[in-house]
Order: sequence, then C-alpha cells, then structure tokens
Amino acid sequence: MSLGSFLDAQRQAVDEALEACMPGEDSYPARLVAAMRYSLFAGGKRIRPVLVMAAAQAAGGKATDAMPAACAVELVHTYSLIHDDLPAMDDDDFRRGRPTCHRAFDEATAILAGDALLTMAFELLSLPSGRITPATRIRMVEELSRAAGWRGMVGGQQVDMESEGAAVELPVLEYIHTHKTGAMIRCCLILGGLSAGASRATLRALTRFGEKVGLAFQIVDDILDVTSTTEEMGKDQGSDARRGKATYTALFGLDEARRRAVELVEDARTEVAKVDSKGILGQIADYILLRRL
Amino acid sequence: MSLGSFLDAQRQAVDEALEACMPGEDSYPARLVAAMRYSLFAGGKRIRPVLVMAAAQAAGGKATDAMPAACAVELVHTYSLIHDDLPAMDDDDFRRGRPTCHRAFDEATAILAGDALLTMAFELLSLPSGRITPATRIRMVEELSRAAGWRGMVGGQQVDMESEGAAVELPVLEYIHTHKTGAMIRCCLILGGLSAGASRATLRALTRFGEKVGLAFQIVDDILDVTSTTEEMGKDQGSDARRGKATYTALFGLDEARRRAVELVEDARTEVAKVDSKGILGQIADYILLRRL
Repeated sequence: MSLGSFLDAQRQAVDEALEACMPGEDSYPARLVAAMRYSLFAGGKRIRPVLVMAAAQAAGGKATDAMPAACAVELVHTYSLIHDDLPAMDDDDFRRGRPTCHRAFDEATAILAGDALLTMAFELLSLPSGRITPATRIRMVEELSRAAGWRGMVGGQQVDMESEGAAVELPVLEYIHTHKTGAMIRCCLILGGLSAGASRATLRALTRFGEKVGLAFQIVDDILDVTSTTEEMGKDQGSDARRGKATYTALFGLDEARRRAVELVEDARTEVAKVDSKGILGQIADYILLRRL
Repeated sequence: MSLGSFLDAQRQAVDEALEACMPGEDSYPARLVAAMRYSLFAGGKRIRPVLVMAAAQAAGGKATDAMPAACAVELVHTYSLIHDDLPAMDDDDFRRGRPTCHRAFDEATAILAGDALLTMAFELLSLPSGRITPATRIRMVEELSRAAGWRGMVGGQQVDMESEGAAVELPVLEYIHTHKTGAMIRCCLILGGLSAGASRATLRALTRFGEKVGLAFQIVDDILDVTSTTEEMGKDQGSDARRGKATYTALFGLDEARRRAVELVEDARTEVAKVDSKGILGQIADYILLRRL
C-alpha cells in the first residue's frame, strides 16, 4: 500500500470513529452539539490522530487499541482551534475556508463547544476499549493532561498571545513552538506507543521523534504563512506576520527556516530508526512536513 | 467536633492540598499561572470538595484518598466560573467581591486560565495517590468528564445562555439546574464514594442524595439572588432576575421556591439515611442550604 492510501485509510477510520463517539445532530442542547460537530468535521487533515495510529503500528500495536487516543487528540486539537480563533485571542473569521466557530454560531457557544470537546477527550480515554488496561488508560490521561495544560499547549498559547507585536528572542520563540504545537505532537507519539504496550526504550524513541517533528511542524507552518496563498492555507495569507506574531521566518528568514525544518526531520528519522522498521513514521514525517515546503 | 469546626478543618485541608498541587507564583508563564491562582484562591467556600470529603467519610473512606478528587472538582468549578463570567457569557465584572478574572487580567488570559484549570483537574485524578487503584481513578475520570461535559455542566450553561430573556417552561428550567449545577454536585458525592471503595448500593444512595442536594442548591441560589444584598452575594443583587434569566423564584415565587428547597433537603436526608450513620451528609446539606435561607 502506498503512503497516500495508508494515510487516506487511517483518516477515514478516524473520521468514522469520531462520528461514532460524537453526539448525533439531533442531540440536546442542539446548538452546542452543532457547534462541536461543525468544528470537528470541518475537513481537518487529522495529522495528530494519524501520528497516534502510526506510532501504535510502528510499536507493534493494533489500530483498534489506539483509536480512542487518536480521537482524543483530535478533540483537543479542535477545541484549541476554536478557542484560539476567538475575538479575544487571534480574532480569526475564517478557518479551513469556512467561518470560524464563533462566526458561524456565537462567541458563548464557541467557548462552550471548546470546553465540551476538551472534556470529552478525557471521557474517551476513560472508557473501556480493546485490550487497554485501566493502568494504561490512566497513564494516557496523565500524558494528555500534561501536554494540553498550563505547561503544555495552553502555556504556549499564553506566551504566544503575550509576544504579539513584541521583539521575541529565540528562547521565547522555542518555548512557544515546543509548547503550543510541539507538546501535543509529542503526546500523539507517546499515546500511540502506550496503546501498543511499548517498552520504555521504544517510548523514549517515539518521544524524541515527536519532539523533533513537532518543532519542524511549527517551522513549516511559519514558512507556509509567508509563502502560500490564502486559498491554500484556508486562512489569510501572511496573517501571522502582519499581526507581529513571533515566527521562525521573521527571526531567521525563509532559507534558514527551511534548512532547520529539513534537518529536524532527518534527526527525527534517526531517533526512531530502530523502532520504525517499516519506515512508516519517517515517511509520514516527510509527507506532512517536507512535501509542503 | 461541631459541624462548623468540621467544615473549617475540611476547607483548610482542601486549601492546603490545592496549594500543594498548583504551580507556584514564580512559575512560567507567570501571567497564566497568576490568573489560575487568582481565581482558585479567591476565597471560595469549597462546598464541592467538602461534599467529596464528607461522602468519602460517610462511606468509610480516608480523607487522603478523597483529596485528589476533592481538588479536581474545585478546579472544574473555578474554571466554570471564569468562563461563565466572560463578556460573551454572563459579562460579570465582580465575583466574590473582587474583579472577575478577565477584569483583573484580560480576556485571553481568562479563557486560557479556565482551559488550564479544567485540564489540570484530569491530571490530578490521573496521578498515583494513596490506595486508589488505576481502575478507580479511570472511573473517576469518566464520572468527572460526563458531569462537566456537553451533557452535564457545559450543556446546562449552554441552555441557560440560550434561555436569557425568554419565557422558560419548567422542563427547561429543570434541565438547566440539574445540568449546570446539579451534575457536578452529584459527581462530588460519587467521587467521594468511589474513593472509599463504596458498594454499588452506597454509590446509588450517594448519587440520589447528590441529585436532590444539587437541585436544592440552585433553588437556594435563585432565592438568594432576590433576597440578599450585593455585599452578601459578592455579585450584583438581583442580577440574574434583571438579566431575564430563568430562575425558580421567577417561575414559582419566593415562598414556593423555599418550600421546594426544604422538601428536597428532607428527601436527600432520607435517601442517604442508611449510609450516613453519623448524619454528617445530612447536616452539611442543612448547613450549606437551609441555613442560608
């Protein structure tokens, strides 16, 4: 199977699992559920759940055991987009070419839809599923809560907000990137490994792979913010730069940013070489990162 | 020990445990952590954690085993207050006599502080603690996520927002109350029971007690919104009524609302009579509800 077909199959499986765990369109309160579904099924690329599934398979696990964690990280990702887009935060009107949640609904509903999706991520991890023991599930809750919380994704978003329009030094930029995006990407690899019952050594390798890919991912996003069209990005081109946001391209320029992204992906492949016997993780890193440059 | 001293001792123990689990004032990102601490240590009455502790003790459990759950429900409660106070929601400037989180800091920080507190609640439940098994901890995650999520507290807040200024019928009012406040109060009793390894029958009795107390709690809040002064409430007196919010007093009048609250507390005591041999739960219900009328 080609990588493209593998990714398509994973994405479809994740979408079906998300549909199965989400409240249906006729659920009450209707507007809240509609807002949750609107943002969750907005045509996202499901990169994070695919990373969970790929890590699980690289570590010898089964797709069904990894699926709750795959869905949970997508719920957390979706909540973070909804809250980041709010007027008090990035104030974005469009996301993936459609009105953002608070534009399609209203601000109160968007805040609550985000809260509900975050809460539901932990519910998914808590439910009995496949061969995953309670001890593994509670470990997943620990990893996800750390990655998503005040010293993870939320912390990164806070520093990102505070740095808007300010001259940002490299340590702060790296804090933003490793926390705002990196912590959750890293978490995807760990959750996939945990679902497969991976050894400590394998978990360490997956973690390091996740750290490098996570950083590369944000650098590529910064590059695309400058180089792609509004249509490709589904949001205003150059909007981060215009807003005076801290970016790699602002600090290093396009060429150096590209060089760093390529180097990080190479390093990531090396970290995981022993685990990733079929090369699936390395290929995915290439695919979601370098292909876009 | 008198009930007053018992409650004071529990509150102090909860405050110490919260202090121990929260990031210190010198943590990074400083503004995010300051906002989280500002709202968490704002002089709340810790009613929910005290209910967790009391349920645990009624069911023969130890205080140390119940403490993580007690802290977790207070984090969820604090997050819900921060988000409910936001301009897009209730738009409140004061809470417990102090500026609300988004007034003391800013809206973006308040949204993120709420997100971080919610996330941290699940982290607390995930950490190894006392004699609680992983199976019990993951069950706690399930109960808390259900109680706090789209078909619990968040769902109740959504319907409450939608009902503002509208003529609300009793079924909708009861939905709001059983979900917005009731689901989390009920959850406190369940978590306390789980931490004590309570039998299924005991858990059922605690659950029913929690349902009745939770509804009574909201009715008492509605009554106090009309009868007490701004100073006593720490927020504008009559603010719910002025805002055209659905309340029990608006629907039934003061006397009938009072009668219902008293009846619910009586029913709650009956539900839990067999479990609550020392009468601690019943006394607490009287204390936090009827004493305030």
